[in-house]
Amino acid sequence: MMNNKIEKDGPKQVEQQQLEQQLTEDIVDPWNVQASSNKGIDYDKLIDRFGSSRIDDALLERFEKLTGQNPHHFLRRGIFFSHRDMHRILNLVEAGKKFFLYTGRGPSSDSMHVGHLIPFIMTKWLQDVFDVPLIIQMTDDEKYLWKDLKLEHCNNLAYENAKDIIAVGFDMSKTFIFSDVDFIGGEFYKNVLKVQKHVTFNQVKGIFGFDESSNIGKIMFPAIQAVPSFSSSFPFIFGGKKDIPCLIPCAIDQDPYFRMTRDVAPRLGFQKPALIHSTFFPALQGASSKMSASDENSSIFLTDTANQIKKKVNKYAFSGGKDTVEEHREKGGDCEVDVSFMYLRFFMEDDGRLEEIRQQYSSGQMLTGELKAELIQILQKMIAEHQERRKSVTDEIVKQYMMPRALNFTIKK
Amino acid sequence: MMNNKIEKDGPKQVEQQQLEQQLTEDIVDPWNVQASSNKGIDYDKLIDRFGSSRIDDALLERFEKLTGQNPHHFLRRGIFFSHRDMHRILNLVEAGKKFFLYTGRGPSSDSMHVGHLIPFIMTKWLQDVFDVPLIIQMTDDEKYLWKDLKLEHCNNLAYENAKDIIAVGFDMSKTFIFSDVDFIGGEFYKNVLKVQKHVTFNQVKGIFGFDESSNIGKIMFPAIQAVPSFSSSFPFIFGGKKDIPCLIPCAIDQDPYFRMTRDVAPRLGFQKPALIHSTFFPALQGASSKMSASDENSSIFLTDTANQIKKKVNKYAFSGGKDTVEEHREKGGDCEVDVSFMYLRFFMEDDGRLEEIRQQYSSGQMLTGELKAELIQILQKMIAEHQERRKSVTDEIVKQYMMPRALNFTIKK
Repeated sequence: MMNNKIEKDGPKQVEQQQLEQQLTEDIVDPWNVQASSNKGIDYDKLIDRFGSSRIDDALLERFEKLTGQNPHHFLRRGIFFSHRDMHRILNLVEAGKKFFLYTGRGPSSDSMHVGHLIPFIMTKWLQDVFDVPLIIQMTDDEKYLWKDLKLEHCNNLAYENAKDIIAVGFDMSKTFIFSDVDFIGGEFYKNVLKVQKHVTFNQVKGIFGFDESSNIGKIMFPAIQAVPSFSSSFPFIFGGKKDIPCLIPCAIDQDPYFRMTRDVAPRLGFQKPALIHSTFFPALQGASSKMSASDENSSIFLTDTANQIKKKVNKYAFSGGKDTVEEHREKGGDCEVDVSFMYLRFFMEDDGRLEEIRQQYSSGQMLTGELKAELIQILQKMIAEHQERRKSVTDEIVKQYMMPRALNFTIKK
Repeated sequence: MMNNKIEKDGPKQVEQQQLEQQLTEDIVDPWNVQASSNKGIDYDKLIDRFGSSRIDDALLERFEKLTGQNPHHFLRRGIFFSHRDMHRILNLVEAGKKFFLYTGRGPSSDSMHVGHLIPFIMTKWLQDVFDVPLIIQMTDDEKYLWKDLKLEHCNNLAYENAKDIIAVGFDMSKTFIFSDVDFIGGEFYKNVLKVQKHVTFNQVKGIFGFDESSNIGKIMFPAIQAVPSFSSSFPFIFGGKKDIPCLIPCAIDQDPYFRMTRDVAPRLGFQKPALIHSTFFPALQGASSKMSASDENSSIFLTDTANQIKKKVNKYAFSGGKDTVEEHREKGGDCEVDVSFMYLRFFMEDDGRLEEIRQQYSSGQMLTGELKAELIQILQKMIAEHQERRKSVTDEIVKQYMMPRALNFTIKK
């Protein structure tokens, strides 16, 4: 029986080696992602189970019509595949009104990998296209509560990871980043209390699978992830009492937090946050590869050198190619399981070239080595550029992004 | 069957009218105090059950020897009757080292009653005698989580109640008062997280009786009441990393919070707080009187006029006297159940006069009206003086007590 757990936090942070077991359905929650079949997570079933909506052509057309831009390839290619209330957000845009973006990161690893960039790349595109303020929560408290790490270490990681996030290119004048540990207080804490008063142990048990042996920090934490959805948590940004709607781009495993948030919001007189959900980023070893506690080779890190990237892709990226050149030429490669092709779907912007590769690889005209060379080139360029931008992110710049302050945008009444 | 619930929060704040039931043992936790017999709480049994120690003559002698002062009448008369680790605190004093005091209040009522003053009167005496810093926590978050009140209202009550607390006469240069809602953050929040990580739902369920329908705010709250016990929560007062020992004067119903705190402290590398516990302050209707949700006449409030005090004592204070003067003269009054006499034990400082009254009342020489007249005079003077001091407590003075700042004391290495 296979354990189809997908690595989420980078190889060094994986803490649980669950017993291998046959699942009857996929497990997807903020701490465990495990497919019940070796084909990986069934995202269609997930939409049904979670009760979210598919990002369909009609929604993409609205995006295009309202922004005058081709939707980001993450949207076109179904990498962001599910949403909640996105039409309500687009209605606002249509009416000339603003919303704000909220996303976050649990800073558990010294070095982030390329998969960690996905929600931030999507978020930056949304910020640029809609010209809206953005709030980024670093849940250093969450990481401390769940992992065998010191609090001070988690807190430091929040600042280190913030540098990588800033290097994605967010507009400082429209972006506020904070560490839970250092920021909590004031209106934010008041909203945390309001959420906590309206959510029972039974509810978080049902949503998150907590049990009686869970520590009380874990039990209260969902309220802390919930409240950045409410603009009143940030009076220095949003002023007054007006409740500005929120859009949350995140991987689908974070949805339980926001199902809870959406459930409690109306009882507090707040608007429900809207969401767009991404699929998971596969490990180099494949979308259904086994979790490994100490495998630095399971992904491409933002600190990898050009040479490391080349080696990792060539050596570890699971191939959908055939065993021999002859067989490959004859039968073609399988893009459905080929990790290099999957990574190209994430990072190659040119739709035409991607389709060309798909056809050539599937037909056997392109060999695995050639496919990997395409990916290596793209990753090397992307990572080198990221590293270049990150170099210029000083502690002082981090401080500026993390300073509670007014942001440069106007909310139409 | 009697319901021997003792009113704790003032008549307006009582929220539960529990079904009357026969208890096999006293219930004493931060939200319920209910005696199993109509003689009131059995404090000796409570010491055994809680595993605390009796404040005995040997301890009082140490107090006297070390301070050169007669121990406060709350100590001499067994009003503060139980302790944990008080000898460790006195060892420090003996060695010329400092500790700090921590007490608090859940600000649920607009007007505090005289019973609410007991821990603060004790605390002031300890601050004066030992010349130590004092931290007073206003748990406005707790009151919001437990009561059907708005958060903003609880927060306002914290500031209103702080005025009455300040009027007790604490030395501003050695006293820091804070509202949880407004203060939480920084090192304080870090310690909250550390406690929360080391306490499970099972533990708070066992200690506090929470169940699966408890809101997650209640479940996490004990950590917030715990952390003022740790000096590292207040770096602006205690600086550096040295762990200064803490002494907590409180009513015995608060002990569950600090049993939990003492359990978790060593696992965080902190010292266990020491405690001294008081008995409960009886309602005018008697130590075993029935709880009433809207009875303004169950206690003497700090806002009562001289006339109201006189009326309430004369009309409502449960009497241990006999039905007729003749019978009273013959058989004498019962000080054990006479609320006016109980109140005199709390507030009459003169031991000699108190003993005289006890003898004269018990023998029938003193009538109930005369006993009540003694109490009325003492309460009128005490409340008038309190009201006079409270008048001078401006918002600006409250602000000064509540400003995070260094306090005027030295900690010997």
